[in-house]
Amino acid sequence: MAGVVRRFLPLFDRVLVQKAEVITKTSSGILIPERSQAKVLTGKVLAVGEGLRTESGSLIPPAVGVGDEVMLPEFGGTKVTLEEKDYFLFRDSDILAKMKPE
Amino acid sequence: MAGVVRRFLPLFDRVLVQKAEVITKTSSGILIPERSQAKVLTGKVLAVGEGLRTESGSLIPPAVGVGDEVMLPEFGGTKVTLEEKDYFLFRDSDILAKMKPE
Amino acid sequence: MAGVVRRFLPLFDRVLVQKAEVITKTSSGILIPERSQAKVLTGKVLAVGEGLRTESGSLIPPAVGVGDEVMLPEFGGTKVTLEEKDYFLFRDSDILAKMKPE
Amino acid sequence: MAGVVRRFLPLFDRVLVQKAEVITKTSSGILIPERSQAKVLTGKVLAVGEGLRTESGSLIPPAVGVGDEVMLPEFGGTKVTLEEKDYFLFRDSDILAKMKPE
Amino acid sequence: MAGVVRRFLPLFDRVLVQKAEVITKTSSGILIPERSQAKVLTGKVLAVGEGLRTESGSLIPPAVGVGDEVMLPEFGGTKVTLEEKDYFLFRDSDILAKMKPE
Amino acid sequence: MAGVVRRFLPLFDRVLVQKAEVITKTSSGILIPERSQAKVLTGKVLAVGEGLRTESGSLIPPAVGVGDEVMLPEFGGTKVTLEEKDYFLFRDSDILAKMKPE
Amino acid sequence: MAGVVRRFLPLFDRVLVQKAEVITKTSSGILIPERSQAKVLTGKVLAVGEGLRTESGSLIPPAVGVGDEVMLPEFGGTKVTLEEKDYFLFRDSDILAKMKPE
Repeated sequence: MAGVVRRFLPLFDRVLVQKAEVITKTSSGILIPERSQAKVLTGKVLAVGEGLRTESGSLIPPAVGVGDEVMLPEFGGTKVTLEEKDYFLFRDSDILAKMKPE
Repeated sequence: MAGVVRRFLPLFDRVLVQKAEVITKTSSGILIPERSQAKVLTGKVLAVGEGLRTESGSLIPPAVGVGDEVMLPEFGGTKVTLEEKDYFLFRDSDILAKMKPE
Repeated sequence: MAGVVRRFLPLFDRVLVQKAEVITKTSSGILIPERSQAKVLTGKVLAVGEGLRTESGSLIPPAVGVGDEVMLPEFGGTKVTLEEKDYFLFRDSDILAKMKPE
Repeated sequence: MAGVVRRFLPLFDRVLVQKAEVITKTSSGILIPERSQAKVLTGKVLAVGEGLRTESGSLIPPAVGVGDEVMLPEFGGTKVTLEEKDYFLFRDSDILAKMKPE
Repeated sequence: MAGVVRRFLPLFDRVLVQKAEVITKTSSGILIPERSQAKVLTGKVLAVGEGLRTESGSLIPPAVGVGDEVMLPEFGGTKVTLEEKDYFLFRDSDILAKMKPE
Repeated sequence: MAGVVRRFLPLFDRVLVQKAEVITKTSSGILIPERSQAKVLTGKVLAVGEGLRTESGSLIPPAVGVGDEVMLPEFGGTKVTLEEKDYFLFRDSDILAKMKPE
Repeated sequence: MAGVVRRFLPLFDRVLVQKAEVITKTSSGILIPERSQAKVLTGKVLAVGEGLRTESGSLIPPAVGVGDEVMLPEFGGTKVTLEEKDYFLFRDSDILAKMKPE
């Protein structure tokens, strides 16, 4: 992981995600047919914020952690370019699911 | 249930559902006429999230559990393709009803 | 009441209602002229959910119970077909009124 | 008051109102010129709900009671036909004012 | 103040206001040029509601009282005709300012 | 400060502001080029309300005080004409910044 | 830092930011290709407000501090011209991320 990514700290409930390459079959078995206009994508969490701050001032920690394999919505997220590579910022609550380790 | 589905953990109040096939009569007696543009569909819950997090940080557990037979709204839900099969993610609160066991 | 309807459990603040037939005069005296495009309809409650869950996690029990004769809004509600008959799901708060027993 | 109206129980913060006839001068002195497209109407409260339920589950009792003479907004309200007469359901908070007894 | 106005009790945070005549200079020195399409108007408070009810059921008393000289927004307010005179109902929070006594 | 302005009491979180003249350089060094369609304007606070009332009934005092030099948004605010001069009412939360004294 | 900027105190959760010049590579390694219509920009925090006030009247301190290198959204923010230089005001919650010191 490059220096800039390591130093990158998303704010609040934002999560920095590296999208998985569009391949025929991922290591975890998720199959994305090339022909489909894939509606859902997977990715890996690289950095997470401290969480959303509530009205009472407390923090709700994010539901995903660094290293988690996550399922992303088709739309949404903000593209961030760090050292010539594209990453995406999602809000914690927009991430659909995570994969439990095998 | 395939490995990927077993590892699939919906976030928050999301529920992974496998829609029932469009048949003339289900085992529980729900009849869906072939001619109709069926307004409501049924399905089976495969995985549920931990629940929605409130402002105070506590979790509201989902109202359905794995294995429940549920009644789904006509619209809504996010299609997820896992190992070449289609599943759907619904928010807990969008599920209309569940069937009590006989 | 058929088996499927008996097993049908609405979620949250949803209420399963069987609409009254469009007749000239109901047993309770509510008159619906045939010529009118009846703006309000009546029905009978067949099943109710546990109630709406508040932010604090507690349940607000529904304001109507099984067997109640209710007054429904002209629009809204979700049609549900169970064993070839049409029923309607309404949210508790969309039901206009109920009739006190005589 | 007819039997159906007496049995009619509005839900939550709804109020059943019988609109005043369009007359030149009401007994309380409110004058509604015939030529005007009367922007505000008066009526009499026939039945009130238990009140609106708050997030904490408690009830806020309605601000008007049976028998109150009220001032209604020009728009809004749901027409309800009971035994061939027209009544209106208003939410408590949509009623503009009530008249103190003389 | 006429009998109907005296009996008039606005509900919640509503305030009954009598608009000032469009004059060249008011007694308090507020100048409204005749040629202008006066953007702000002044008036006098004739009656106030008990205040807005909060979620917890308590009342927030209105910020103006009977007799207060107030500054009104150009738009908004509901015209009420009582004994052939026009008055206006404003919500407490829509009133811009009040004039301190000299 | 004229009599009417001195008697003027904004309600809630409203703030009465006198906009600065469009000059080339203000005394505090803020430069507004004549040619620009100045996006932000400065002004001086003449009167402030008691503050916004919260759901619990308490008051949040405004973040600016009488005499403060403030930075205003390009749009928004309500023009008020007092003794032939134009002033503006802004909500406390719409004011962008204030200048610390030198 | 000029005098006006030093005296500039953003209100509530607003943050005064000086955008980074569009260069090929920043000192921290963030690369913004000249050809791209850069979707995300970086900047430096010059001043921060006291924080957002909650319903209970307490302050939530901003998540960034003076001197922080931040990542900004493509749209949003209010341009402020101080002593002929352009700065931007962002709400705390609109800032995407900050860079941890190396």
